[in-house]
Amino acid sequence: MADTLIKVDLQQSPYENKKVHNRWHPDIPMAVWVNPGDEFKLETYDWTGGAIKNDDSADDVRDVDLSTVHFLSGPVGVKGAQPGDLLVVDLLDIGARDDSLWGFNGFFSKKNGGGFLTEHYPLAQKSIWDFHGMFTNSRHIPGVNFAGLIHPGLIGCLPDQKMLDAWNAREAELIATDPDRVPGLANPPNAPTAHMGMLTGEAAAKAAAEGARTVPPREHGGNCDIKDLSRGSKVYFPVYVEGAGLSVGDLHFSQGDGEITFCGAIEMAGWVHMKVSLIKGGMAKYGIKNPIFKPSPIVPNYKDYLIFEGISVDEAGKQHYLDVTVAYRQACLNAIEYLKKFGYSGAQAYSILGTAPVQGHISGVVDVPNACATLWLPTEIFDFDINPTAAGPVKMLDGSIDMPISQDK
Amino acid sequence: MADTLIKVDLQQSPYENKKVHNRWHPDIPMAVWVNPGDEFKLETYDWTGGAIKNDDSADDVRDVDLSTVHFLSGPVGVKGAQPGDLLVVDLLDIGARDDSLWGFNGFFSKKNGGGFLTEHYPLAQKSIWDFHGMFTNSRHIPGVNFAGLIHPGLIGCLPDQKMLDAWNAREAELIATDPDRVPGLANPPNAPTAHMGMLTGEAAAKAAAEGARTVPPREHGGNCDIKDLSRGSKVYFPVYVEGAGLSVGDLHFSQGDGEITFCGAIEMAGWVHMKVSLIKGGMAKYGIKNPIFKPSPIVPNYKDYLIFEGISVDEAGKQHYLDVTVAYRQACLNAIEYLKKFGYSGAQAYSILGTAPVQGHISGVVDVPNACATLWLPTEIFDFDINPTAAGPVKMLDGSIDMPISQDK
Amino acid sequence: MADTLIKVDLQQSPYENKKVHNRWHPDIPMAVWVNPGDEFKLETYDWTGGAIKNDDSADDVRDVDLSTVHFLSGPVGVKGAQPGDLLVVDLLDIGARDDSLWGFNGFFSKKNGGGFLTEHYPLAQKSIWDFHGMFTNSRHIPGVNFAGLIHPGLIGCLPDQKMLDAWNAREAELIATDPDRVPGLANPPNAPTAHMGMLTGEAAAKAAAEGARTVPPREHGGNCDIKDLSRGSKVYFPVYVEGAGLSVGDLHFSQGDGEITFCGAIEMAGWVHMKVSLIKGGMAKYGIKNPIFKPSPIVPNYKDYLIFEGISVDEAGKQHYLDVTVAYRQACLNAIEYLKKFGYSGAQAYSILGTAPVQGHISGVVDVPNACATLWLPTEIFDFDINPTAAGPVKMLDGSIDMPISQDK
Amino acid sequence: MADTLIKVDLQQSPYENKKVHNRWHPDIPMAVWVNPGDEFKLETYDWTGGAIKNDDSADDVRDVDLSTVHFLSGPVGVKGAQPGDLLVVDLLDIGARDDSLWGFNGFFSKKNGGGFLTEHYPLAQKSIWDFHGMFTNSRHIPGVNFAGLIHPGLIGCLPDQKMLDAWNAREAELIATDPDRVPGLANPPNAPTAHMGMLTGEAAAKAAAEGARTVPPREHGGNCDIKDLSRGSKVYFPVYVEGAGLSVGDLHFSQGDGEITFCGAIEMAGWVHMKVSLIKGGMAKYGIKNPIFKPSPIVPNYKDYLIFEGISVDEAGKQHYLDVTVAYRQACLNAIEYLKKFGYSGAQAYSILGTAPVQGHISGVVDVPNACATLWLPTEIFDFDINPTAAGPVKMLDGSIDMPISQDK
Repeated sequence: MADTLIKVDLQQSPYENKKVHNRWHPDIPMAVWVNPGDEFKLETYDWTGGAIKNDDSADDVRDVDLSTVHFLSGPVGVKGAQPGDLLVVDLLDIGARDDSLWGFNGFFSKKNGGGFLTEHYPLAQKSIWDFHGMFTNSRHIPGVNFAGLIHPGLIGCLPDQKMLDAWNAREAELIATDPDRVPGLANPPNAPTAHMGMLTGEAAAKAAAEGARTVPPREHGGNCDIKDLSRGSKVYFPVYVEGAGLSVGDLHFSQGDGEITFCGAIEMAGWVHMKVSLIKGGMAKYGIKNPIFKPSPIVPNYKDYLIFEGISVDEAGKQHYLDVTVAYRQACLNAIEYLKKFGYSGAQAYSILGTAPVQGHISGVVDVPNACATLWLPTEIFDFDINPTAAGPVKMLDGSIDMPISQDK
Repeated sequence: MADTLIKVDLQQSPYENKKVHNRWHPDIPMAVWVNPGDEFKLETYDWTGGAIKNDDSADDVRDVDLSTVHFLSGPVGVKGAQPGDLLVVDLLDIGARDDSLWGFNGFFSKKNGGGFLTEHYPLAQKSIWDFHGMFTNSRHIPGVNFAGLIHPGLIGCLPDQKMLDAWNAREAELIATDPDRVPGLANPPNAPTAHMGMLTGEAAAKAAAEGARTVPPREHGGNCDIKDLSRGSKVYFPVYVEGAGLSVGDLHFSQGDGEITFCGAIEMAGWVHMKVSLIKGGMAKYGIKNPIFKPSPIVPNYKDYLIFEGISVDEAGKQHYLDVTVAYRQACLNAIEYLKKFGYSGAQAYSILGTAPVQGHISGVVDVPNACATLWLPTEIFDFDINPTAAGPVKMLDGSIDMPISQDK
Repeated sequence: MADTLIKVDLQQSPYENKKVHNRWHPDIPMAVWVNPGDEFKLETYDWTGGAIKNDDSADDVRDVDLSTVHFLSGPVGVKGAQPGDLLVVDLLDIGARDDSLWGFNGFFSKKNGGGFLTEHYPLAQKSIWDFHGMFTNSRHIPGVNFAGLIHPGLIGCLPDQKMLDAWNAREAELIATDPDRVPGLANPPNAPTAHMGMLTGEAAAKAAAEGARTVPPREHGGNCDIKDLSRGSKVYFPVYVEGAGLSVGDLHFSQGDGEITFCGAIEMAGWVHMKVSLIKGGMAKYGIKNPIFKPSPIVPNYKDYLIFEGISVDEAGKQHYLDVTVAYRQACLNAIEYLKKFGYSGAQAYSILGTAPVQGHISGVVDVPNACATLWLPTEIFDFDINPTAAGPVKMLDGSIDMPISQDK
Repeated sequence: MADTLIKVDLQQSPYENKKVHNRWHPDIPMAVWVNPGDEFKLETYDWTGGAIKNDDSADDVRDVDLSTVHFLSGPVGVKGAQPGDLLVVDLLDIGARDDSLWGFNGFFSKKNGGGFLTEHYPLAQKSIWDFHGMFTNSRHIPGVNFAGLIHPGLIGCLPDQKMLDAWNAREAELIATDPDRVPGLANPPNAPTAHMGMLTGEAAAKAAAEGARTVPPREHGGNCDIKDLSRGSKVYFPVYVEGAGLSVGDLHFSQGDGEITFCGAIEMAGWVHMKVSLIKGGMAKYGIKNPIFKPSPIVPNYKDYLIFEGISVDEAGKQHYLDVTVAYRQACLNAIEYLKKFGYSGAQAYSILGTAPVQGHISGVVDVPNACATLWLPTEIFDFDINPTAAGPVKMLDGSIDMPISQDK
């Protein structure tokens, strides 16, 4: 039986838990140590550390302090791990906590982080999802019900100082191109809300001042928000520091490709059951820069999809050059228009794309000037038939239920 | 039994076949007419109209005149189709011709079109793929063998004049931002090599002068290069002109997501067996701008993948803002480095990504500043095990076989 | 390009084609020879050699002379193949002939062969299925449409004399237990209708007198009617005679597990594209008695099933001991009763189970005294929803269309 | 959050738990009541109530008193359920208990129940399987590791008196044909070891005397041992008594089709999370005799299979008539011979077939006199490649590890 090496108390502030941290820095001490071959469990907070509540107001989403995220459990030191190795992590299982069988999804206000479609949905909104065994549904979005593809949004090893410096430099350079942009182009280090785990005193202050924020995915993996890194998958992480320093958090009960709603997938507190081993010198042996992984043999088997195309011409008709991001945004907007014909509000449709096991495919990236992206919407998650017919769509929802929304203050 | 409504003679120039065209324009007359509910076949040239040969030199790839592509069979007029309808196309089957059981893949010279990784592979290269029933392999790339996910790279209906004008305007605007770029940002109309089907004389000349090039995917579908639009799928196309005017070409025996090699997938001549029907007024009923489709129930069932991550930091270490195109390029480069450890040349690895049923997923698009994309490489297409092991990779290929390459003239 | 080594003329009697035979005997000469590594095509008759017509009468099914079947193309000699080897056959592709894009299914009269449910459906009935590219439907059975899982019902190598003698002996022993049973327990050799391929004169007469009938599957494979031995699969056949002697026929466009209708699956004339190689001494190396195989990577991907259970208590309420055959019959009868609620006649429902990609699973064989079998009916093949709902089934068919039936003479 | 309505204490004898029973009888009182629409959990013993231990001796398997099984949790009364209704059960999740993360598999002695291959493996043997999150492996059978397809071996509703009488009558009739057979043809009521739940005194004694044993599957479902009735599936049970009376037990972490080892699958104690609803009058509406079900969207996705054929000629060469049970036994024996070539003992190979997600298909049931069955062995569960190659098999195991065996006393 696997021991739970890190426990969290959802009633306690994550800042009080020394085996939790919210920045990336090589100086953060290992919270626990394990041996290669060991199997163990880690409990985690939800990414916001409990800031979002199971209620019917989006005020908490509107008011969240994004400088505090993400609260990660770890780092786990693996004995014998050295820079250049690959840390092999088997995600043997992942689950919600018995005392917290729900998750949240939402859009941040455009003034506080925004999201992929923030120009269209600029205000904070929220939906709550209840877990029913392996399935979930939301009291705010009728007519959908699906199996969870449970995964950690964020998992990876500590960077070394050189990599950390490179991250900070390149992101600072980007920010400098438009420092006043709202939302910001990137997030620089922010000492006041940093939680450096077991690090204390001056060392903590120094590290906090330069600790990389956890928002973006980077070479070490980190906040990749890859829905397919799900329970049952096997991941090969680059190791940069002695002991590797594996941390994990930001668990998702389910997410659509892109995590377009940003706040976020179906976010939850929970636990991860994993096993670690090493491939010595694996980075050079296999030419690895970013993590690689193998998918789980156990995933929700939805296969009847309705697929929406998008090209890199934006809503204003402007032509972009082979821009998959623009193309995927168009595919998302196309899917939302379609779902509205069945009675969903735009916000509800947007949330479905952010939470359900929706696939986003890069379909064409060479046919100048248009990239083509496709959004794959599983039809089987709906209680009614959403396929096109000669008769046209039937409005299945009367609009009486919608997602909570909060005006900016 | 379905009649073959359009036939092509591979020994004849496509310019001599009046039921073929290579531009989009509403004035192109219907080559044939069918009724809703009809089932029929169309033969097609390969996209270059026979310019690339089954041999061991890449000179033809280097020298191809890209202003001539793509040679499409059609337009097929559907009686009763009106602007605003959806044309439903069942792709009942697609195949190669019995007299042409091979296809080609390659990279264009950076000076003549390039490709997704043209900075890394700037010269023309080619590989030839032989078809063995439902499977294919290449004498230029040992150790891979896979089932074809056969699909048309290009299919769609004629635009109306208003849409055509919008296309030309927005693409011209883009070109104007860097008119001398090599390769070009987009391709403007080009009358000299236009083939306007049955249109003749002055009308042909006028239409040729403004006929949209077939390279990019657009609102009508067109050159989407979506591998999943494969035989057995069902597509819903917007209709813009009386009779719809469905054209098809650019058949692919197989392709990886993104068609990153540009020249192209595994390109072939062949035939499409389809059935058409209408959803009257379907564009408004369903809020359709771009085509939507449902995947085939019969697709190659590869499911053991090795997945490579990429983030939007480019090869030079420069930070881009939520740019999926950059992220996918990194994932591709990561996969190529990995495959080189087993003995493949970079060009061979690049070709595998362009031809095999590789998936490209948009994994994260909101975690500023990094987008995350993943490339899914099916392990089952290789004759040997490409999974990582503690022992490290075994060099399975000795480098004695490589792809033909041609220096720029 | 693969040569077609055996051709058949559907207008000609199969008895006139010397590269066809309808009995198993080691003396039948090889019709053609190939080398290991060769790729080639064989054309085949339908299993009855053209006795069943594309019309709306079941008289031909009632009157068929079952002593003439199955007409096989071959034997193909493989140079170097020796007894004890495994002959590896890649079924690269299989298809219908362009001049015969239809197939038949039916039940024999109980007096002439019967079928799995012959006590319930004792008269000859027939349905005709038209092929539409990769799909099929029947004018006699509305509301179903599915992709073909094309496969040879019958494929295997020539037995040696010792094996042939064992077959004849054990089957004769069974027949002797109830020699007058209708339908018979097994079919003994029958010289008058034997077609011994290239064998002539006295040698043909001698072989015909003891040539094994092709109806049952046996150690060499033969008439296994395994729907999953489909195009794209790889089969390992035991070799008993010099040159192996591979023969094939009885092509099916589609079949449900069990081929319960007996006449048969969706039976068709067509062609097989295959490649052969050898594992020398493979029978002993791998302990092989019967063929083994690997399924195709390309199969129709139906996955939403309604599953019917059956136990080994028969229709009369009699308890059988761990009898899977009885259990599967009950599962079939249960599925038929269910489908009748939607308006199908029993005969139509029976035919759907015999033709569609229905799965039959052996679910429990140890819980004395009841075996449990399950029948998996894909819901996606129906034009309407056949899932149970609180409201109950809707009768979708008015009974105006049914299958032709012929009274016994 | 779903309440746990029935709890079990693994340290306590199941006979002391009043919400457990081990016979089928309409007089057993409901242990708990729920409403349609309710979601709840039930804990269960392993089927033997704790008789088999996590150790390295098979003595407990040899000595088990099979008259005590199966210990079921329930019956659960559903308010409003009436005879003729269908009880719809959503199996929302199923799991092992945190204090019991292991299971057992074994063969009974031929003198005490036997198994499918008891003629070949007549002595008691056992293997212990440890659970690692969603995966399992055994210290007694090296080289295999697979994801659990967790399911209840036994689930169903209480019979009414008429059905109970029919069961007892038909099974008694079978037993009477060979009353001294070892193992017995069926198991008659056995009062001494009956546990009638909340029923006490004379009523309990009367019911115990005629209570049906739980071993065989019957019309109500019961001990179907259908591996596909797994967590996430939806089952429609016939209702025979007021309140339905749903009971469940015999949880399996994994099982191969047929549960050929009989003792049993990978047997475990655990819990079931379910939701119930009703289709009023559903039995008549849909013509339902036995339960029907829909499979889970979440199942282990193994798809590379090696498939073994078997025909209805037994090991002694005797011909049976269309007997799928004999055919499946031959397919199993063929698979065992194959696996032995890689170093497994016969017992180990037999256990793999009993525990892993092996499929058993009914392939042909009409080609007199031979039925054909196939056993589908997933190759991905092995640590090494078990596919046939020209070089022949490599012995991967040295035989130093085998399963505990116990001689008959």
